[in-house]
Amino acid sequence: MVTVVRGKDCEVRFGLGLPTVIIGERINPTGKKKLAEELKEGKLNIVEEDAIKQAEAGADIIDVNVGAVGVDEEEMLPRAVKKVMEVTNKPICIDSANPRAIKKALEVYPYKALINSVNGEERSMEEILPLVKESGNAVICLTMDEKGIPKDVETRVSIARKIIQRAESLGIPRDDIVVDCLAMAAATDSSAGKITLETLRRVTEEFGVSTTLGVSNISFGMPNRALLNIHFLTMAIFNGLTAPIVDPLVDGLLEAIRAADFLVGRDPYGMNYISIYRKK
Amino acid sequence: MVTVVRGKDCEVRFGLGLPTVIIGERINPTGKKKLAEELKEGKLNIVEEDAIKQAEAGADIIDVNVGAVGVDEEEMLPRAVKKVMEVTNKPICIDSANPRAIKKALEVYPYKALINSVNGEERSMEEILPLVKESGNAVICLTMDEKGIPKDVETRVSIARKIIQRAESLGIPRDDIVVDCLAMAAATDSSAGKITLETLRRVTEEFGVSTTLGVSNISFGMPNRALLNIHFLTMAIFNGLTAPIVDPLVDGLLEAIRAADFLVGRDPYGMNYISIYRKK
Repeated sequence: MVTVVRGKDCEVRFGLGLPTVIIGERINPTGKKKLAEELKEGKLNIVEEDAIKQAEAGADIIDVNVGAVGVDEEEMLPRAVKKVMEVTNKPICIDSANPRAIKKALEVYPYKALINSVNGEERSMEEILPLVKESGNAVICLTMDEKGIPKDVETRVSIARKIIQRAESLGIPRDDIVVDCLAMAAATDSSAGKITLETLRRVTEEFGVSTTLGVSNISFGMPNRALLNIHFLTMAIFNGLTAPIVDPLVDGLLEAIRAADFLVGRDPYGMNYISIYRKK
Repeated sequence: MVTVVRGKDCEVRFGLGLPTVIIGERINPTGKKKLAEELKEGKLNIVEEDAIKQAEAGADIIDVNVGAVGVDEEEMLPRAVKKVMEVTNKPICIDSANPRAIKKALEVYPYKALINSVNGEERSMEEILPLVKESGNAVICLTMDEKGIPKDVETRVSIARKIIQRAESLGIPRDDIVVDCLAMAAATDSSAGKITLETLRRVTEEFGVSTTLGVSNISFGMPNRALLNIHFLTMAIFNGLTAPIVDPLVDGLLEAIRAADFLVGRDPYGMNYISIYRKK
């Protein structure tokens, strides 16, 4: 499978065997007081700045999430998407727990977006998947449901299977499905890392779909989180991860991704890897 | 399986699910002119210095190899082993292509060593395995034979199987067998990394044995080799690598190994990982 998303004059492709693509995570007020404050006041200065900085740092796709207490997402999500489109041509990942906000954001985005996200809950599938089908966009599918995030590989894989089957039954092509295998804190459950990595491997082998992952949960509560995140990311790339959601401004992250791609044969002859060192 | 090796008042255990153990690779004249010169002159200053430095940097086992043109290994290997024993209690990995030199070195080593190595060639198995059995040491088994290093996973696994069966038929316990899955340059063969990693996974799953790997070949001919080596190492740890042969003085290596152990559940609650940051 190859997933394709588009911005203005800009197409991004990712999937099994292709170089890893970076979804920039910075435009998200979770845990970011200043950004949350701005969004509440209807301002988009940090959104604009983070879109530019991430694109310059190597983000291929820009995630846009404005979800915070006191923010009207149905108003702010389309505004933020428009703002990001003004300053970069990169494709956008439209990220919200509110289906109406997603719908409104899609109305202002004339290219092919990535919708973030649907999960295995009946209600989520009923609300989001028809929207994906109608709009012809791609969608991130979380391997969780009304019972939360399963602690075992098998249940996560079965949720992925359920969402993929439902999506395909509606006519959504498998290329447009991106499965998020979800990371939990390894500090409280020492099997958390292996479960996510094995889920990635199984989902990749069984369904051949593109995958995504927000890696930073894995290091919650530990010292030097950036080191843990980067090594977890490269292990995930070995296991088939195609489009991580990460902060491209983190020191050494881009180099590590290019190194991992080279090591697992997703960058033949290391052309992408070597190009980092040519630029320097 | 749990492999145990011993120095004076010092026992090192490694195997599936246990924290990664570091075999220090520095005492090896391959590509090291100065060390080769010293050994030719019968001097052991660098050997002594490297033994101390590696033990201080976190090596659990010290590899000792004196093989170079113009060096009489049968004389120098036992002398080097004695020198290392004078300055550290760490167990020694006795490393030579010359079975007589290994035998002479074993005569001066009163503890349980790791012998490096036997391979799938009939002659190698005939010379080395009886020596392992008689002396009660552990042994590294290279997944190669008279035809060289196989390009595919299946043949490497079948060579491992052959050596393990032969060793067990002589009464060598499987705990004392450490399989080296071998890394080749990814610059010339983009599948090289995946082949080594999948071999590690297969050997670990099928035979349950301890494994080793010299990682640095993977990055041959590429810029920033240390970065590639470190990420290949952590991917290998995910795939079951238990005792890599590495240079513990490389910046960031120990941190990366501890991070990888934590991420794959080989360091519950991250006690080893956290202890690095407590010391600093």
